[in-house]
Amino acid sequence: MKFVAYHHHGQPGVGLLSNDGLQIEPFDIPVAQRAYGALSIIESLAEGDKLPTLLAPLALSEVKVTAPLPKPRRNIFCVGKNYHAHAKEFAGSGFDSSAKSGGDVPTTPIIFSKVPECVIAPGEAIVIPAEVSTAIDYEAELAVIIGHGGKGIKKADAMKHVWGYTIVNDVTSRDWQSRHQQWLMGKSFDTFCPMGPYLVSADELDGTNTRVRCFVNGEERQNASTTDLIFDIPTLIETLSAGITLYPGDIIATGTPVGVGIGFKPPRYLQAGDVVRVEIDGIGSLENPVR
Amino acid sequence: MKFVAYHHHGQPGVGLLSNDGLQIEPFDIPVAQRAYGALSIIESLAEGDKLPTLLAPLALSEVKVTAPLPKPRRNIFCVGKNYHAHAKEFAGSGFDSSAKSGGDVPTTPIIFSKVPECVIAPGEAIVIPAEVSTAIDYEAELAVIIGHGGKGIKKADAMKHVWGYTIVNDVTSRDWQSRHQQWLMGKSFDTFCPMGPYLVSADELDGTNTRVRCFVNGEERQNASTTDLIFDIPTLIETLSAGITLYPGDIIATGTPVGVGIGFKPPRYLQAGDVVRVEIDGIGSLENPVR
Repeated sequence: MKFVAYHHHGQPGVGLLSNDGLQIEPFDIPVAQRAYGALSIIESLAEGDKLPTLLAPLALSEVKVTAPLPKPRRNIFCVGKNYHAHAKEFAGSGFDSSAKSGGDVPTTPIIFSKVPECVIAPGEAIVIPAEVSTAIDYEAELAVIIGHGGKGIKKADAMKHVWGYTIVNDVTSRDWQSRHQQWLMGKSFDTFCPMGPYLVSADELDGTNTRVRCFVNGEERQNASTTDLIFDIPTLIETLSAGITLYPGDIIATGTPVGVGIGFKPPRYLQAGDVVRVEIDGIGSLENPVR
Repeated sequence: MKFVAYHHHGQPGVGLLSNDGLQIEPFDIPVAQRAYGALSIIESLAEGDKLPTLLAPLALSEVKVTAPLPKPRRNIFCVGKNYHAHAKEFAGSGFDSSAKSGGDVPTTPIIFSKVPECVIAPGEAIVIPAEVSTAIDYEAELAVIIGHGGKGIKKADAMKHVWGYTIVNDVTSRDWQSRHQQWLMGKSFDTFCPMGPYLVSADELDGTNTRVRCFVNGEERQNASTTDLIFDIPTLIETLSAGITLYPGDIIATGTPVGVGIGFKPPRYLQAGDVVRVEIDGIGSLENPVR
């Protein structure tokens, strides 16, 4: 099952993508809930409700696809340095000294957040805020979407709490990330969270074993399997829920593989005119221009 | 003007506190907005609307006061190590090595967040999550509430964007804060953000020059003036809004003075049975038991 949120004649909606990927069957939900994309559906499924009634199908080509969760209920949880090779390139970049960021490979998950309002749709522009930073980097990531919430969730039960997956590009201002020590600001600039195109249910995709790729202007920069995560999805959910109650619709971006711009010498930051495409097997492709 | 959010016969409401502090005049706003406390009022004032009509007064003694913003629109922005003496005690505690946290006194603001769902009311219990951490500390803080939102706000204009102030206790798990490097989790455990009792408008209180005190079981632990902030309120707003659009109702907890539990040798963490009281001149007193 793939959820897709969209605008049709300027009005928000959310529906099911057809198997051939050409049509959307819209959910019949209250207008006020539609701007939140799949959020209210995931919340009501977590309460044991069935899927809402479906309306007459629309052609995918007639709508503008938005992020599946365009207005997350709270900041997006993100994981730092969660692939071995990326943790090493990051420490080796010199931008973030290993003393400051705790050595090459973290021994416990590093979790920070991005503000909900930096989420943008597939195709929308990542805007370089040139007056404050030009050290703007891409980070291709698998995002886990929580279905049933909870607290004190153990690893063995954690996958039952995963509703599904989408793609996130955890765009980052490297100088702000480094200079301000805590990463919230450098990760949260407006337009810094491209998300989409679809939200794929966990029965259709094994997020623990899929491939994440990133291309800048068609050149492959990142390519890794989520089997290489330092802290796997069950560990992330156990850690996050140890003291914090998780809710349906919570988003956990699981970290990025080696190959980010800061890993090159000199760094290869995003430039106006670039196009960044993130692909995850089983989800699809998330492409955004840079301006 | 002081806004107070409350429950009356189990129903949420929000109103104006009378000058004598004994009565509330409830705002006549839609039921769906009342659970958000003062949020919708601040949003509509920012759009140029007048205050809503007032209903017949209630005695303050008849209601249960809640946090003035019990359901913030997104994570709460918080500032780390923003008083000189506290930055030194923190580095000197050995818990967070100066190498890892960037030396005694930061040269740029350190900004992290707390999840909205950890907000609790005056009088509600701070719960020690004993199975995951017992190194639980208090942090008395002045919280700035944004009125008119914006981006790229300059210091000279910043105070025009402040609607008012409330009190926040930025409760922290010190071992999680240290071990996981990024502070989100150790700052966001359930019940870790007591807030209140009132939201005081900026025309009634000069937040740049007021006194913040914290008492544990009646013993004074913290006592400083906001004139001692390393990064003052205009600087915080300029920094935050440089790349991130601020919205009405955004909350910025401005940092805590010297005197936290981790500053003692050995540390004096909160224990079940303790009572923490934060006082800020011009706002009032926020008291919470610990269990």
